[in-house]
Amino acid sequence: MNGCIFCEIVAGRAEASVVYEDDSVMAILDLHPAAIGHTLVIPRTHMTGLTDASDEIGAPLWRAARRVAAGLRAAANPPAPAGSPPATASEAAGGAGVAGLEGVAGGSETARGSGNAGVRCEGVRLSLADGEAAGQEVFHLHLHVVPRYPGDGIVIAAGGRRRARGLLDRDAALIRDALPGWATGSGRGGD
Amino acid sequence: MNGCIFCEIVAGRAEASVVYEDDSVMAILDLHPAAIGHTLVIPRTHMTGLTDASDEIGAPLWRAARRVAAGLRAAANPPAPAGSPPATASEAAGGAGVAGLEGVAGGSETARGSGNAGVRCEGVRLSLADGEAAGQEVFHLHLHVVPRYPGDGIVIAAGGRRRARGLLDRDAALIRDALPGWATGSGRGGD
Repeated sequence: MNGCIFCEIVAGRAEASVVYEDDSVMAILDLHPAAIGHTLVIPRTHMTGLTDASDEIGAPLWRAARRVAAGLRAAANPPAPAGSPPATASEAAGGAGVAGLEGVAGGSETARGSGNAGVRCEGVRLSLADGEAAGQEVFHLHLHVVPRYPGDGIVIAAGGRRRARGLLDRDAALIRDALPGWATGSGRGGD
Repeated sequence: MNGCIFCEIVAGRAEASVVYEDDSVMAILDLHPAAIGHTLVIPRTHMTGLTDASDEIGAPLWRAARRVAAGLRAAANPPAPAGSPPATASEAAGGAGVAGLEGVAGGSETARGSGNAGVRCEGVRLSLADGEAAGQEVFHLHLHVVPRYPGDGIVIAAGGRRRARGLLDRDAALIRDALPGWATGSGRGGD
């Protein structure tokens, strides 16, 4: 689409740091990463959000997100070279090379001593914002793949008080009744 | 899996408020909703997270999430009955029936006057937490579908300073080099 930065990247007319690509999607690094390695999986075809997306894009988005997540975890925890002795705590601590990160217990200490330039990943968050009210800023659908670790500074907060079953059942009925006509069983929708 | 609450729900041994289901997934309401209508899409088969998930579950997860998102938007904005006059502002205000929601400009005011018991949805956020460090609390994979609207009280904050292209390119190379062997092109992975 004209004027869409992600379409420009897909077309090779704007620069991007590409992590993964296939026939359907590209995975590129976010210019303003929430954590080092924060990746966006984007369809090659322009679509804005969930409403105008296809069902078919789901499989390649998921496949790419799983691969990027595995790559992030592996980049943060590269396998030790065969025959190398286990790193000591002091080697690991000295080799981290990332300022401002809090100490964290766990297996990635050794990894951070191996020259990985700061990719830390003990968990992964996928997210997708559909619409301005959801925080969408670029209106070409994109799935965030964000490496998480304790002390990463990412805050996700919501009310989350327990809701009574009777109210939940009423909510569910309202949503079920409003499901689109194409929400039928396990078959493909008609879109 | 024994002791897994979502497996108990899938098996019909624990209660849930079901929004949607098909052969592969169920969509149920979160007990502690971030907003009314907050839904979880769960695979019927037990899987913990991205690592032990299959590529095949991506399509049904996406399909269900798109349907639930459409249902949330429609529940918040039901079509007016044919021939009915437009609701007045006072009818809309009197009919919302949800305490503690802030006033919001926009088209959903009328909808909330139509007996929808408080589903508000001007955007949708999908998210998936993979691992404790990402905030995962139930270790059966689940995709959140959260209706969003201005003033919903949900806070998502991360650093997000711009990162130089040279650093991004280096990050991308590290992650690409660490991609799993099954991250190959557009074909199916070997898992």
